[in-house]
Amino acid sequence: MAILGAIEAGGTKFVCGTGDEQGNVHDRISFPTTTPQETMEQVIKYFSDKKVEALGVGSFGPIDPIVGSDTYGYITSTPKPHWAQYNLIGKLKEHFDVPTTFDTDVNGAALGEYTWGAAQGLDSCLYITVGTGVGAGAVVGGRLLHGLSHPEMGHILVRRHQDDHFAGFCPYHGDCLEGLAAGPAIHQRWNKAGAELGPDHPAWEMEAHYLAQALMSYVLILSPQKIVMGGGVMKQSQLFPLIRTKLQQQLNGYVQHRSLLGDIQEYIVPPALGDNAGLSGALALANLALK
Amino acid sequence: MAILGAIEAGGTKFVCGTGDEQGNVHDRISFPTTTPQETMEQVIKYFSDKKVEALGVGSFGPIDPIVGSDTYGYITSTPKPHWAQYNLIGKLKEHFDVPTTFDTDVNGAALGEYTWGAAQGLDSCLYITVGTGVGAGAVVGGRLLHGLSHPEMGHILVRRHQDDHFAGFCPYHGDCLEGLAAGPAIHQRWNKAGAELGPDHPAWEMEAHYLAQALMSYVLILSPQKIVMGGGVMKQSQLFPLIRTKLQQQLNGYVQHRSLLGDIQEYIVPPALGDNAGLSGALALANLALK
Repeated sequence: MAILGAIEAGGTKFVCGTGDEQGNVHDRISFPTTTPQETMEQVIKYFSDKKVEALGVGSFGPIDPIVGSDTYGYITSTPKPHWAQYNLIGKLKEHFDVPTTFDTDVNGAALGEYTWGAAQGLDSCLYITVGTGVGAGAVVGGRLLHGLSHPEMGHILVRRHQDDHFAGFCPYHGDCLEGLAAGPAIHQRWNKAGAELGPDHPAWEMEAHYLAQALMSYVLILSPQKIVMGGGVMKQSQLFPLIRTKLQQQLNGYVQHRSLLGDIQEYIVPPALGDNAGLSGALALANLALK
Repeated sequence: MAILGAIEAGGTKFVCGTGDEQGNVHDRISFPTTTPQETMEQVIKYFSDKKVEALGVGSFGPIDPIVGSDTYGYITSTPKPHWAQYNLIGKLKEHFDVPTTFDTDVNGAALGEYTWGAAQGLDSCLYITVGTGVGAGAVVGGRLLHGLSHPEMGHILVRRHQDDHFAGFCPYHGDCLEGLAAGPAIHQRWNKAGAELGPDHPAWEMEAHYLAQALMSYVLILSPQKIVMGGGVMKQSQLFPLIRTKLQQQLNGYVQHRSLLGDIQEYIVPPALGDNAGLSGALALANLALK
């Protein structure tokens, strides 16, 4: 069994760990995300005696995951101080001469669920996280979804809920999906963190309105075989039945597939890998690099 | 050079033809779409002496293009009389024992543009047709986009234009993209066919508003390397610059890629295969079957 190295590169912390090809995490550690110099030094020190045979990095973005591109391996135009145009993979390669896969944290999480989690045995799946931001990644035809670049599904436009007068907080688009449905939007709209609102609070019906609309676009455009919803906001488990019902209402029977009709509770699910989704995703990227 | 057989199975007519692996169409004929029995008899008669080595069918939908599925090769839940649950590929297989690929007309058109047209040499592209309906297909990572089923991108929800009071004509969703932006919506909204409205008519700014929104979702969700826009409505070439500008305004610099910034006139283009997009798409499906 090979030893795999996983790096979940987040905007507030880096989680590093080792694991194996069956998705077991053997060891983990985390560091705050400060400057590239400081944080990467800790990452490199951690892996220096681990003898990993491959590395996977699931990163905050935007990044360049396109192999062969001039800026492959870079975190690109992030507003996060010190990290814009940083060659993360280049830095790792200076120290570890092993196969490496670099992708977004959400593409990694989608691959993790596809490899070891809720979407095992399928050909495609979508993973969406709803937390401080909204992001999604996907596996299509057994492969990570790329094109021009990686997806940025959290920023699609949605129709407003009729009772919603919150302006939206996305600095680029104002009231796009992320601007209306990420954790900070809930907090700012109701002057209370989501975790402090009761399960019957009208916030959740509104939240489900936005997320179901997004899922409708994802279903009609990508046709994933499974949708996995994670992130802090999705800890509010009352959202799942609300979202499923609203998605069915919006689609109105147009897509005649049992996954969207009777069996929808099997179609829209929480992550099987639970709170390990991020690190397991990075591990799945390492597993892909090894192959 | 192999002889390939192509069938563009449309809701009003079937276009059949032969061609080769370089995308050249050698011969073509068309029949009105009446009943499966009548129409397919003509199709079978046409190909009976053509000695084709592979067949490609790009069809109106919804269809089942998933190889291995119980209803693979069927036109499924179409409202078109006589054609619901019709096993089109099964019928062809009774007469022609050659490799066959079956997909939506728009997935076929996307593959045609990818193989011989505007997206040659790329890894992904999206083809959208705006005509009596709105539909889109895509190639992702060199392969036709499938998942649960085929995409149904024409039915995503869009935000209304502030001056638009037309209810939308989609029988499933009312004012989804197709309901607001397909040819019949233009006709009903302005009481005149699009072809009779001048190029400066406000209809086109409104049309571009809807199509640019759809493109924004396609870009953020699929990240295609090229977008090809065809169909009757897109003959109004004034739409192209309007759509490009509105897409840039909506994205607001969020996706930092030269294709979406300076070079956008190379990113959103008319079909290189022109009015042959449908038959060429079916030919590309036959070419894929041969491989």
